[in-house]
Amino acid sequence: MTDHSVKPKSVKKVVLAYSGGLDTSVILKWLQTEYGAEVVTFTADLGQGEELGPARKKAELLGIKPENIFIEDLREEFVRDYVFPMFRANALYEGIYLLGTSIARPLIGKRQIEIAEAVGADAVCHGATGKGNDQVRFELTYYALKPDIKVIAPWREWSLTSRTKLIEFAEKHQIPIAKDKRGEAPFSVDANLLHSSSEGKVLEDPAIEPHTDVFQRTVSPEDAPDKPTIIEVGFEKGDAVSIDGVAMSPATILTKLNALGKENGIGRVDLVENRFVGMKSRGIYETPGGTILYAAHRAIESITLDRGAGHLKDELMPKYAELVYYGFWYSPEREMLQAAIDKSQEHVCGTVRLKLYKGNVIVIGRSSPASLYSQDLVTFEDDMGAYDQKDAQGFIKLNALRLRTLAMRKRKLGK
Amino acid sequence: MTDHSVKPKSVKKVVLAYSGGLDTSVILKWLQTEYGAEVVTFTADLGQGEELGPARKKAELLGIKPENIFIEDLREEFVRDYVFPMFRANALYEGIYLLGTSIARPLIGKRQIEIAEAVGADAVCHGATGKGNDQVRFELTYYALKPDIKVIAPWREWSLTSRTKLIEFAEKHQIPIAKDKRGEAPFSVDANLLHSSSEGKVLEDPAIEPHTDVFQRTVSPEDAPDKPTIIEVGFEKGDAVSIDGVAMSPATILTKLNALGKENGIGRVDLVENRFVGMKSRGIYETPGGTILYAAHRAIESITLDRGAGHLKDELMPKYAELVYYGFWYSPEREMLQAAIDKSQEHVCGTVRLKLYKGNVIVIGRSSPASLYSQDLVTFEDDMGAYDQKDAQGFIKLNALRLRTLAMRKRKLGK
Amino acid sequence: MTDHSVKPKSVKKVVLAYSGGLDTSVILKWLQTEYGAEVVTFTADLGQGEELGPARKKAELLGIKPENIFIEDLREEFVRDYVFPMFRANALYEGIYLLGTSIARPLIGKRQIEIAEAVGADAVCHGATGKGNDQVRFELTYYALKPDIKVIAPWREWSLTSRTKLIEFAEKHQIPIAKDKRGEAPFSVDANLLHSSSEGKVLEDPAIEPHTDVFQRTVSPEDAPDKPTIIEVGFEKGDAVSIDGVAMSPATILTKLNALGKENGIGRVDLVENRFVGMKSRGIYETPGGTILYAAHRAIESITLDRGAGHLKDELMPKYAELVYYGFWYSPEREMLQAAIDKSQEHVCGTVRLKLYKGNVIVIGRSSPASLYSQDLVTFEDDMGAYDQKDAQGFIKLNALRLRTLAMRKRKLGK
Amino acid sequence: MTDHSVKPKSVKKVVLAYSGGLDTSVILKWLQTEYGAEVVTFTADLGQGEELGPARKKAELLGIKPENIFIEDLREEFVRDYVFPMFRANALYEGIYLLGTSIARPLIGKRQIEIAEAVGADAVCHGATGKGNDQVRFELTYYALKPDIKVIAPWREWSLTSRTKLIEFAEKHQIPIAKDKRGEAPFSVDANLLHSSSEGKVLEDPAIEPHTDVFQRTVSPEDAPDKPTIIEVGFEKGDAVSIDGVAMSPATILTKLNALGKENGIGRVDLVENRFVGMKSRGIYETPGGTILYAAHRAIESITLDRGAGHLKDELMPKYAELVYYGFWYSPEREMLQAAIDKSQEHVCGTVRLKLYKGNVIVIGRSSPASLYSQDLVTFEDDMGAYDQKDAQGFIKLNALRLRTLAMRKRKLGK
Repeated sequence: MTDHSVKPKSVKKVVLAYSGGLDTSVILKWLQTEYGAEVVTFTADLGQGEELGPARKKAELLGIKPENIFIEDLREEFVRDYVFPMFRANALYEGIYLLGTSIARPLIGKRQIEIAEAVGADAVCHGATGKGNDQVRFELTYYALKPDIKVIAPWREWSLTSRTKLIEFAEKHQIPIAKDKRGEAPFSVDANLLHSSSEGKVLEDPAIEPHTDVFQRTVSPEDAPDKPTIIEVGFEKGDAVSIDGVAMSPATILTKLNALGKENGIGRVDLVENRFVGMKSRGIYETPGGTILYAAHRAIESITLDRGAGHLKDELMPKYAELVYYGFWYSPEREMLQAAIDKSQEHVCGTVRLKLYKGNVIVIGRSSPASLYSQDLVTFEDDMGAYDQKDAQGFIKLNALRLRTLAMRKRKLGK
Repeated sequence: MTDHSVKPKSVKKVVLAYSGGLDTSVILKWLQTEYGAEVVTFTADLGQGEELGPARKKAELLGIKPENIFIEDLREEFVRDYVFPMFRANALYEGIYLLGTSIARPLIGKRQIEIAEAVGADAVCHGATGKGNDQVRFELTYYALKPDIKVIAPWREWSLTSRTKLIEFAEKHQIPIAKDKRGEAPFSVDANLLHSSSEGKVLEDPAIEPHTDVFQRTVSPEDAPDKPTIIEVGFEKGDAVSIDGVAMSPATILTKLNALGKENGIGRVDLVENRFVGMKSRGIYETPGGTILYAAHRAIESITLDRGAGHLKDELMPKYAELVYYGFWYSPEREMLQAAIDKSQEHVCGTVRLKLYKGNVIVIGRSSPASLYSQDLVTFEDDMGAYDQKDAQGFIKLNALRLRTLAMRKRKLGK
Repeated sequence: MTDHSVKPKSVKKVVLAYSGGLDTSVILKWLQTEYGAEVVTFTADLGQGEELGPARKKAELLGIKPENIFIEDLREEFVRDYVFPMFRANALYEGIYLLGTSIARPLIGKRQIEIAEAVGADAVCHGATGKGNDQVRFELTYYALKPDIKVIAPWREWSLTSRTKLIEFAEKHQIPIAKDKRGEAPFSVDANLLHSSSEGKVLEDPAIEPHTDVFQRTVSPEDAPDKPTIIEVGFEKGDAVSIDGVAMSPATILTKLNALGKENGIGRVDLVENRFVGMKSRGIYETPGGTILYAAHRAIESITLDRGAGHLKDELMPKYAELVYYGFWYSPEREMLQAAIDKSQEHVCGTVRLKLYKGNVIVIGRSSPASLYSQDLVTFEDDMGAYDQKDAQGFIKLNALRLRTLAMRKRKLGK
Repeated sequence: MTDHSVKPKSVKKVVLAYSGGLDTSVILKWLQTEYGAEVVTFTADLGQGEELGPARKKAELLGIKPENIFIEDLREEFVRDYVFPMFRANALYEGIYLLGTSIARPLIGKRQIEIAEAVGADAVCHGATGKGNDQVRFELTYYALKPDIKVIAPWREWSLTSRTKLIEFAEKHQIPIAKDKRGEAPFSVDANLLHSSSEGKVLEDPAIEPHTDVFQRTVSPEDAPDKPTIIEVGFEKGDAVSIDGVAMSPATILTKLNALGKENGIGRVDLVENRFVGMKSRGIYETPGGTILYAAHRAIESITLDRGAGHLKDELMPKYAELVYYGFWYSPEREMLQAAIDKSQEHVCGTVRLKLYKGNVIVIGRSSPASLYSQDLVTFEDDMGAYDQKDAQGFIKLNALRLRTLAMRKRKLGK
C-alpha cells in the first residue's frame, strides 16, 4: 500500500524534525510502525514563538526515550550564522521575498545530521510536503553534509493523503489531538524569528485579498499608531549590532526589531512566487524586523560601500537569493558568493536613523566613521579644488568615443 | 578668462536646451556674446509642471527669432518610448532609485539633435553642471546621434562661478530676474512627469532629515488620508493601459497615478547614490506614479511571467539600470537588453488591484487571461494528478548528486 | 517485470526517434510488444554521415506501415535555425565544448512532436539512456511543445539492462543484427553535421589518452599536411555565407568547413564535463568545421561589434551555453538571450582570412564594410585630431575618483 | 608651449618607471629640465628579457644619484601575486587575450608608490602614451594606493610629438642614442615573463597578416619540431607547482613553460581588441607558457571543481578580465571576485598531462587525489546502485513543469 522510497526495515534509527504538532506526531508513530525504526526527535527553537515543553512531553508520551529527545534553542545561531550573512547580501527573491522560510531549513537540516552522527542514526526524516520547496531545502542539506544518509519524506510516501485518514491514524495510535486540529486548518503556517508565512487553501486565489485573520505578527498599517517611532540601528562589518545605542546579540536585535515592526504595521508582503519544483504559489509573509533591517543595511551601505563593490553585489544578489531559495545553502557557489559579499562588508559600519510609521520604513539619516560620502566633492559650493570640472569633458569624450564611431558607421552605411 | 572647450567664433548656430529660467537665460545670452552664435532655443514639456508660454516670451525678449524658438509637448513620447520600456525592466538603480531624471535626458538630447539637423546648427548646449550625471547623459546622447556635433557645456567653461557673478551678468545684459531668484535657492530641483528630485546645499548632509518644504509633489504619509484608496491597473504587453477599467494614453495614466500617489503620500525616497562621475551624492526623490507602477508591474509579472524569464530579468536589471543612470540609453548594449526584456513581455497582461494608503502600495489582487498560476498544480487539496509528488524525489536526488560527491570527497580527504 | 512510467496499453500510437540501428530497432519491437502501440518511425538526416535507405528498409521489415515511416533531410534547417543562431552567441560550454550533441536534440524532438500531431500519436519515444543529458534535452523539448504528450524512455524502464539481454530480445524477435554489433561497442558515438562525440567504456578513465581509433572525422594534427591551407569565410548578420567568395547555403558551408577541418587536424577536444543530471563525464569531440567557424565569427565580430555589445555578449554566453547544454532550447530565457544576441549581429559582416595548419586555426586578416576599427583613432602617427590625448587625463581622473576616496578612508582609519 | 597638467616647479621629487631605453631617458631629462624635479628611477625585472645593468649605468650618466636608482627583480612576486591569481580565474579578455600586459602594470605602479613613500617623493611618472590602456592602468594604481600623489604623463603633456623632436631633444641633452633607435621602430613592443605584445605602425591594418619578424618569443607552428613534447603540470590550490614532478617556484615554472611553448610554436595570438579608452586596436601577442598554463588549469579544474562553482566562475570571468584589462586591479570589486574565485580553488590539485605539438596544447590526461570524477556514477556498465536511472524521470518532469505550463497557456490563448 505504501510505496516506500527507502525500504522499511532497512532503517534502524531515524532523526525526525519534530514540532510536537499533530502532523509530525503522526509521522513519529508511522516511523515506528511502518519502518520499525527507533525514533530520535529534534525540536528546535528558531523563534517560532511556541514553547518547547509540550514537544518534549508529547515525544515522551509517544514512547521516545529521554536520551532520544533533543530540544535546542538555536535562535542566536540562526540569526548570527544564517540570517545576518544573508542580509549582508541584501537578498530578495524575485525582487520582494526576504527568504524567511528558506534560510531556516539549512540550520534545522544541519542539526539533524549532527544529531544523527552523534546518536548513530542511519536516517533522517522531515515533515515537508512533496509539492513545496522545503523538502528540497531539507534534503539538499542532508545530502551535502552526509552523502550516504537515508532520507524519509513521509508526505511523498505514505497513504495518509487526506485529513480524515490522518486523524484516523492518530486515533488508532492514541496520538492526542487538540480540538482545534480536528478540522482542516484554513491555511498553512511556518514561523521563525525572521518571519511567518501563510499559504495554501483559502489563500490559493491570488486575485483575492487575504482576510485580516491571516496576519499573525504585525498589526495592519491602518491599525498602527498615528505617531511615528524613531530608532537608530548600529552596524559593524555589515551586521546590526545595536538599537538606539544599546549593543545587543543578533537574536535580541531581531526580536526587538520584530516588536518595533509589528506595532508599526511593517513587513507584510502578499506575493506570487515561483517554486523550485516548477509551479507558482501564493504566499503571505510577515517579516517585520527583517524589513527594517533590510532598509537599514542598504542605507548604511549607501555611505560606506564603494560603487564598484555595490554594483557587483547588486548583480550577484539575484543568483544568491535563488540559491538560498532553492536550498543550495551548503553549495560551493553560495559559499563563493558569500566570500565575495563578506569581503565587501569590512567597512560597512555606522548608524542609520529610521522613522517607522504605518507600514513605512523611512531612512532619515545615516552616518559612519567610515563614510565615503564627501561633502567636499559633491558640494554645489566652492569645493576648494577637490574636483576639477574640466576632467568631466575628457571623461565624457572617451566614454562617447565608441558611440561616435558607431554613429559614423551608421551614417556611412546609410542606416 | 573663459577657457572654452569649443573655440568661440567656431560655432555658428547652437541649439540650447532652454527652460526659460534664469540660468539658461544667462547661458543664452552668454552664447550670443561669447560665442557670437545664433541661438536656437528648445523647450520641452516633459511634465515638469511649468507653463511653456513664459519661456517663449523670454526667448523673444532675449532676441531669439521666432523661427528659432522650439517649444514642444513631449509627454506622450516620454512615457511611451522611455518611461514604459524602462519599467518593463523593473529598473532600480542601486536597489532603490526609479531613474526619474536619468530617463528624461536621452529624449531631450535626441530632440536637440533633431532640431540641430533641421535648422542646420553645428552645436548644442545644455545647462548641466560639471559635477553631475546629466552632463554625461546629454552629451553621450548628442555624440551617439550626431558624432561630429559640437557640444557647449557652459558650467564647465565659463567664469560665472558664483551666484553673484551670474546675477551681475544677468543685470548687465538686461535679463529679467524674478525676485525669488536673486538669492541662492536652498537646493536644486529637477522635475518631469515621472518624478521630481531635490538635491544640493541644505540637503548635502545625509545624516539630516530633509525639511518638509523640500517635497513638492507628494503629501507626507502622515498627512495622507486615513482611508485607503483602491485602484485597478490594467496591463498589455508589459505596459499599463488602463486605470479602473478606463483605457488611457501612457502620459494620462502616469499623470493619473501621480495624482493618486501624491494624495496618498507615496513615492518619497531619500538616498545616497553613486554618481557616474565618481562621487556619492544625496538625493530626495518623489516618484508617486512610478512607485505605484513599479509595484503593479511586478505584481502582474508575478502571475504571467515564467520563472526562467523572470529570474533572467532580475539578473539583467542592475546592468540595465546602470546603463540608464550612466547615460547609455543610445548604446548597443542597452538595446540588446531591451530586446531581451521586451521579448519577455508579450503575455504580461491583466489587472492588478492595489490599495494605496499613507505611503504604502499594497498589492491585494492580480488576475490575467494569460496567468501561469495554476491552482490545480499548487493546491494542498487533491490535484487530480496534475503533479506527481513522486517526481520530487528524483528531482532532489539528481540536484543533490554533485553535493553528495563533494561530501564524499571531503570525507575521503578528511576535511 | 518492466516498471513502466507510462502504463502499457495506455499508449495507442508512438513516434519513435529511429536510427535504424540495433538499439532503436529493439526499442521499436519492444514498443510493439510491451505497449501494444502502433509505432511511427522518424529518421532524420542531420549530417551524421549514414545513409537513410537502410533505416526505411529495416522499419518496413519490423512491420512499420509505409505511411508511418518518416525520413527527412533536416541538414539545412539544422544549420540555419539551430547551429548558426548558437554560433552567433559564441557558445562554449565550460569554456571548451561547442555543444555539437546538445544542439541537435531540440530539432529532432520538435519534428517528433510535429509528426505526432500530424499522425495523431499520443506518445513519443527516444533511445537515450537514463544517465545522460540527451534524455533531458529530448523530453524538455517534447513537454515544451506539447505539454500533454506521453513520453516513453525505454532505457529507464525496461529490463534489457545488459548487452546479452538486448541481443536475446533481438534474436527472439527476428531483429537483424549486424555482425559487428553482436559484441559491445568499445565506446558510444553520436554524430551530426556539427560534430561527432565519443564516450563511455574504454574512454571512461580521464587519465588515459584516447586511442587514435576513436577519432572519426579528423586526421590527427601529426598526420595533417605540412602545408597550411588558406581560406576566407564571408559573413552577413553574424552568419557565415561564403567560403573563398563563393556563396553557399548554411549546410553546404558547414560541410565544406568540416572537410577543411578534417584534413588539417582541426577540432579535436578531449574533456571532462559536468552533466545536467549531476555527474562528471568524459567526452571526446570532433568539431572540425565548427571550430573554424567559431574562430572566424569571433574575428569578424572583433572589427564589427561595439565593445559594449561584445562584453555583454561575453557575460551572457555562459548562461546561454548552459541553457543549450541542459536542454532548455525552447525556454523563454533562451529566447530572450537569443533576442539580445541577434540584436547585436546586424552589422557583423565581412570577410575573415584564416590559415588552417595541423590543428591550428590562425586568423590572418579581417575586413568589413561595417568595420568599427579606425586607423585614424588608433594610430601611433599623427591622427589629425581624431583623438585628443588630453581627454585621457579627465577620463582617468574621474575613473580614479572613487578609488582615491577609498584610499583616503583607509588612511584615515589607519587600515 | 608645454601644457602641463601638473604645474612645473610644483614637483620636488618624482619616481619614474624607467626602462633605460631612449624614450624614458628623454622623459628623465625632461623631468629634470621642465619640472626641475629630482628624479628617482625605478627599473624592474618582470622577465622582459633585458639586462638591467645598462639601465643603472644610463641613469647614472643622466645624473641620477645612486641612492635614487632602484633596480629590482620582481619576477617571483609578479607570477605569484599577479599572474597566478589571475589564472585561477581563467581570465580571457574578449574571449582570447591572456592579459599579459595588463597584469604587469599594477605591480610596477605599486612599487613606484612604495618607493615614492620611502624616498619622500611627491610625484610619479610613466612613459605610456595618451591613447592606450597602460596610462589608465598605471594611474588607477597610483591613485588607489596614494590618493594625493601627483602624476606626470609626459606623452599627454609635452611637445615632443614626433620622432624627430624626440631625437633633437635627446641630442641637445647628450642622451646616448643607440644606432637602431634613430629611426622609427616598425612597431611597438612590451614584454614580461607572461607575454610579449607587438602593436602599432606596420601592424595597424588588421587585414594584413603580421610579418614573421614580429614574433619574438615563439617559433612558428610550421617551424616547430615534428615530434610532440609530453609534459605533466602539477597543481596545488589552483596554482601550478611542478613540471614533470619537479617542484618549482612560480617564476621558474612560467619560465620553463615559456621555453616549452616557444619551441613548440604555442601561444601566438593576432587580435583586434577594444581598449578602455574607446577605440579598437590590433595586437600581436605571444604567451607561450601562459597558453599552456591556461589549458592545464582548465583541465585540472575539470575533474576537481564542482559544477556549481565552475559555472559561477565562468559567469564571473568576463567581468574579472575586464577589470584587469581596464586597470582596476586595486578595486574592491576585483578583490571581491578574487575572494570568490580563491574560495573555489582549495581542492584544485593534481596532475595534467599535455602534449605540445606545433601550436597545439592537447590535454591527454588528468588525475587528482581530490577528483570529483566518479567512474561508478558515469559508467555505461553496471554501477552497483550508485545512480538510480529512475530518478531522472522525476528530475525531468519537474524541470519541465514550467515549460508545460507555458505550453498550455499558448494553446489556451491560441498563440
